[in-house]
Amino acid sequence: MNAEIIAVGSELLLGQIANTNAKFISSQLSELGINVYFHTVVGDNGSRLQDAIKIAEERADLIIFSGGLGPTKDDLTKETIANHLGLPLVFDHEALTYIEEFFAKYGRTMTENNKKQALVLEGCKVLANHNGMAPGMFLEHNDRIYMLLPGPPKEIEPMFQFEAKPLLAKKVSDDGMIVSHVLRFYGIGEAELEVQVQDILDNQTNPTVAPLASDGEVTLRITAKAQTEEEAWKLIHAKKTEIQAIVGKYQYGVDDDSLTSKTVEMLLHNGLTISAAESLTAGLFQSELAEISGVSGTLVGGVVTYTEEAKVNQLGIDQVLLDQFGVVSSECAGAMAANVRKKFCTDIGIGLTGAAGPDPHDEQPAGTIWIGFAIGDDEPVTRKLELSGMRNTNRLRAVKYACSYLMRLLEEKGYKRV
Amino acid sequence: MNAEIIAVGSELLLGQIANTNAKFISSQLSELGINVYFHTVVGDNGSRLQDAIKIAEERADLIIFSGGLGPTKDDLTKETIANHLGLPLVFDHEALTYIEEFFAKYGRTMTENNKKQALVLEGCKVLANHNGMAPGMFLEHNDRIYMLLPGPPKEIEPMFQFEAKPLLAKKVSDDGMIVSHVLRFYGIGEAELEVQVQDILDNQTNPTVAPLASDGEVTLRITAKAQTEEEAWKLIHAKKTEIQAIVGKYQYGVDDDSLTSKTVEMLLHNGLTISAAESLTAGLFQSELAEISGVSGTLVGGVVTYTEEAKVNQLGIDQVLLDQFGVVSSECAGAMAANVRKKFCTDIGIGLTGAAGPDPHDEQPAGTIWIGFAIGDDEPVTRKLELSGMRNTNRLRAVKYACSYLMRLLEEKGYKRV
Repeated sequence: MNAEIIAVGSELLLGQIANTNAKFISSQLSELGINVYFHTVVGDNGSRLQDAIKIAEERADLIIFSGGLGPTKDDLTKETIANHLGLPLVFDHEALTYIEEFFAKYGRTMTENNKKQALVLEGCKVLANHNGMAPGMFLEHNDRIYMLLPGPPKEIEPMFQFEAKPLLAKKVSDDGMIVSHVLRFYGIGEAELEVQVQDILDNQTNPTVAPLASDGEVTLRITAKAQTEEEAWKLIHAKKTEIQAIVGKYQYGVDDDSLTSKTVEMLLHNGLTISAAESLTAGLFQSELAEISGVSGTLVGGVVTYTEEAKVNQLGIDQVLLDQFGVVSSECAGAMAANVRKKFCTDIGIGLTGAAGPDPHDEQPAGTIWIGFAIGDDEPVTRKLELSGMRNTNRLRAVKYACSYLMRLLEEKGYKRV
Repeated sequence: MNAEIIAVGSELLLGQIANTNAKFISSQLSELGINVYFHTVVGDNGSRLQDAIKIAEERADLIIFSGGLGPTKDDLTKETIANHLGLPLVFDHEALTYIEEFFAKYGRTMTENNKKQALVLEGCKVLANHNGMAPGMFLEHNDRIYMLLPGPPKEIEPMFQFEAKPLLAKKVSDDGMIVSHVLRFYGIGEAELEVQVQDILDNQTNPTVAPLASDGEVTLRITAKAQTEEEAWKLIHAKKTEIQAIVGKYQYGVDDDSLTSKTVEMLLHNGLTISAAESLTAGLFQSELAEISGVSGTLVGGVVTYTEEAKVNQLGIDQVLLDQFGVVSSECAGAMAANVRKKFCTDIGIGLTGAAGPDPHDEQPAGTIWIGFAIGDDEPVTRKLELSGMRNTNRLRAVKYACSYLMRLLEEKGYKRV
């Protein structure tokens, strides 16, 4: 089954938002083994939308639309498709009731426009929307599947996962399975990684192996096709072992793992508590850790010491040390780590200081960053980064490096990774 | 002039990345008054790419390609276009020298593959790439413009802005100017805003007015077309005044402003210093402020008190208060704000506490958030939020609300907005 995703909305063509729905749907279809050959974006214009539909019908069996199901005059996806296929729109009573109840609950008056959202293509299976008004539609017509989904990400994502995906999975189960598995690396560049696994990349058939770099990380996606899921995983595991034999030491995780999630897991698993003193990152390290649910089992807290005075007054950093070495220094990062650890009575203390940019800071060029690690009562260890990115890229990179280094340091001390 | 953007890359169709290049290019073209009617995404496949080119030629005068200019076998954008148009590829000596120098500088061996990146379409204008190997191309052929740009955002964005955009601007200068201006609102929903400016939305011609909601904010984009930029701005200002008369009190900024940037500007302008005590946001408030260059003039620092112990030990919150009201309470948020202000000797202290989710925290349902504001020696003021989003959406919303409330509170006290 080959798919095309048509996103409808002038805001996409004006560059106000990126087409993240196509990314989401594509990754979901890839899990099902459905090939996506094209994405199209078209504005809120009936005749151009109809042209796009005609083109998609020439090259896809499954056409997924996102957007244009709202109550306003701009929203004309279902009207255009109904017109194109010669099908009437009929009221879906369940959707209508849902909309009426919504308005009743909030004491607002329902207009004719809102009622229009309960109109669906005759003969379609209605996909319930638990996060908005507009129901989705799944229509089989002339050997093709037309799927209409709402535009807002918080509506389309659950609707696809819980309503649409099971219907598609049933359709494709006879074609065999495609399974994908992502290996995540840190501390090695994309080019370097590609060179090291060149033979594997050159001789790939099934599974295929595709590298991708983003935000300082590199991933290898292994994709296998087989009759059953079990067979596909067997192929993936063999290839994974081959890859790990070469670049395994740079791998930190798989699939949806992140450096922060792996760090939190490792800390929780080993029963270690952590605190941080942050200057250039200004809370970003702690905030990134706190994205992981359950972090309260390891993160006690920390301080943001953005000014030199705060470093002295709040963290007790020696003014003499700062005068001698500056705030962007190994000595400052080490002292921040050690002092925050003591102050918050944690097993580990992290110190982050540097010149985020665009300007130099304390005579150090933009991108110079020092990270300190105080683990138990050992002398703090420090690491230097020299980054070349923009201000906020540098701040985020510093956080990722801190996680990556911390996991390695803990491993060297005998703590287990998860 | 009508444009189509064709992004080439299987990673887009696999859903590994979103097509942010199309968003960027579209917003740039919109500034020039060039209409974008379609985006297409196609994989690393010569015949499907050629099909996409043929379709684009039927509906666009300007076809912009992103991606597929790299050194590997997957990269076949220029080869496919050369083949389609019957044009040879020739070496560009400047690009070749640049690539050779790069490899010499890093002491690496240049392969034939790398050399291939210096091949360009005969007759094109070469667009220099200062952030990578692959040069871009600007080709006028059969009354159409073909523009080939590299895929990585850090390469395509400067190349478009500094190399390609001036060439396009020259082409369109006779057609008149399109100017866009975005008004940014907070504290009002999209539906509510639309209702209030319904008459303006219904009767728009030139300028047009388009609403868009994202991340808890709503924007109105005013777009005017005129012979000169000055005339276009005159139209925009008239419409802006009309809109502000109705919903001006919710407007916090324009264009690239953000709630954090406006907050930092207001604090700097009024010579106010700030500190924060963060629980559920765990440093996100301070980190978001620190994204703004120059923030060190107002942000002194703060504490992250993720655990109850940290609130007591580091911030001196009264254990009796916590026992009586809980950590997710007006009392706790107010005390956090007041205490961090005193501790860091700042004009303003902010306290953020709550249940980010997914689970309830301290008997309060997920999404319950209290924000405290201590301004000077006045009694702290607190605000409650009841959010329904996911964990990290709630944390970010809390930061945005904190900025929005803070600006209003300061304004009430007579401080000027910027």
